Amino acid sequence: MFRIFICVVSTFLFISVICEMAQSTRFDELLNLDSLRKSLVRQEDTIIFYLIERAKYPRNLALYQEKFVPQSSDSLFHFFLKESEALQAKAGRYTSPEENAFFPDKLPAPLLQTLNSPTPTLHPSGASINVNDKISHFYLKKLLPLITSEGDDGNHVATAASDLDCLQALSRRIHLGKFVAEVKFRDAPEDYTPAIHAKNKEALMELLTSSRVEEAIIKRVAKKATLFGQDVDLQENDTNSKYKVNPSVVSRLYEEWVIPLTKFVEVEYLLHRLE
Amino acid sequence: MFRIFICVVSTFLFISVICEMAQSTRFDELLNLDSLRKSLVRQEDTIIFYLIERAKYPRNLALYQEKFVPQSSDSLFHFFLKESEALQAKAGRYTSPEENAFFPDKLPAPLLQTLNSPTPTLHPSGASINVNDKISHFYLKKLLPLITSEGDDGNHVATAASDLDCLQALSRRIHLGKFVAEVKFRDAPEDYTPAIHAKNKEALMELLTSSRVEEAIIKRVAKKATLFGQDVDLQENDTNSKYKVNPSVVSRLYEEWVIPLTKFVEVEYLLHRLE
Repeated sequence: MFRIFICVVSTFLFISVICEMAQSTRFDELLNLDSLRKSLVRQEDTIIFYLIERAKYPRNLALYQEKFVPQSSDSLFHFFLKESEALQAKAGRYTSPEENAFFPDKLPAPLLQTLNSPTPTLHPSGASINVNDKISHFYLKKLLPLITSEGDDGNHVATAASDLDCLQALSRRIHLGKFVAEVKFRDAPEDYTPAIHAKNKEALMELLTSSRVEEAIIKRVAKKATLFGQDVDLQENDTNSKYKVNPSVVSRLYEEWVIPLTKFVEVEYLLHRLE
Repeated sequence: MFRIFICVVSTFLFISVICEMAQSTRFDELLNLDSLRKSLVRQEDTIIFYLIERAKYPRNLALYQEKFVPQSSDSLFHFFLKESEALQAKAGRYTSPEENAFFPDKLPAPLLQTLNSPTPTLHPSGASINVNDKISHFYLKKLLPLITSEGDDGNHVATAASDLDCLQALSRRIHLGKFVAEVKFRDAPEDYTPAIHAKNKEALMELLTSSRVEEAIIKRVAKKATLFGQDVDLQENDTNSKYKVNPSVVSRLYEEWVIPLTKFVEVEYLLHRLE
């Protein structure tokens, strides 16, 4: 009997340790610059796939402009985004420190308390930084007109689902800046501390900037858009020059919005890092 | 006054005609074999992008196996799929004859009656054919183990959202078989009518099969998986042989499940075509 008890207890302890290890491995990855870089590079593919999917539909302006919800001014896009986030909140999405909602104020609680209680990977003062209003602004006003044709094909719900994919992928990528800033700070607190105390945003921006890395990103995303957005057929030598999303638009997306907003998040995070 | 009246009426009529034209253009496209083929080819890219995205996460078995909803046996996956469809139904997704739900029985009504009232493009007896139970079975039991690594990274909601994308893309592609069958029947009713009257499934399957076209599809999807699933860097000559989803698995997906299920839908549709 005692042996069975020992066996059960040791199995339980073993499983707990394994779970704990899996959990800490995942959060450790977010605090390792090499893993973070790999994740950022992989997220480029995700963002480009989703943009190519959105470009399958025309602009579909009525989705964003026409009133959809009775007794409210909400458009179908607004309704869909808000309700999708509410559903994903119930499912537990926003318990992860990597996820930031576009409508964070009235999210329902998760149905089930998961094991993923937020490990304090980020400094609490900067953890809640959220630039999703800026992301949805550039996405809707600047990017959509560059990647979609004019017109309306009536596929409004599929278009809204595609917008949700794009917005969540961009948000995840840009807010990863909080983890990048945390890692960079931990690696060299002596470099950042004076600028943080002086609230010197320009100095922080300079410390965080590597033009060489940024240029490589901007070139790489164009190459990816070229490869992923071509029409593939079985001919050996494709001389395709028509892409589903213009590669130079993807470069511009990174140069003008994704990289600057990520660095904005990094600077904002660092400004609160010593509070 | 009369001139203003004439002007308003003629503007209204003009807009109505334009809307009507846009609407009928869209449904006409679904009844044109060339447009349908283009759409099927484009949907290959969609399916492969979504599979590559799903492969970013490990199997995450707990998502499908563990009880998630209190007072119910539903897993998080089941809850998420059902609730997402309910939300999309409210938004009007299932008013389109191209969309087929995985839980069609208890879908809420659309919040707004859209202009997209189903045009009778499909014959009513076959329009409701739904093989989503077969699709979710092969996706969960056969395909997922082939494209994901074992393990659990805790990203359960993002994984479920990714599964939803894959399942909806596969469902849309396979159920387009109803439109393919309708077009083929309209093009040559004399070829199909005897087999339909005789309820001869084998004869219908033979009429619908083009081995040459199927072989080209199976090769093309592997080529797409090779191009879209590679790790892209800035070196000129990538000699990459590691792909995010094994191209031969994508070929097998089409050969063993997508093509046979599409033809199953086509045959079932034709069997009801003369009712």
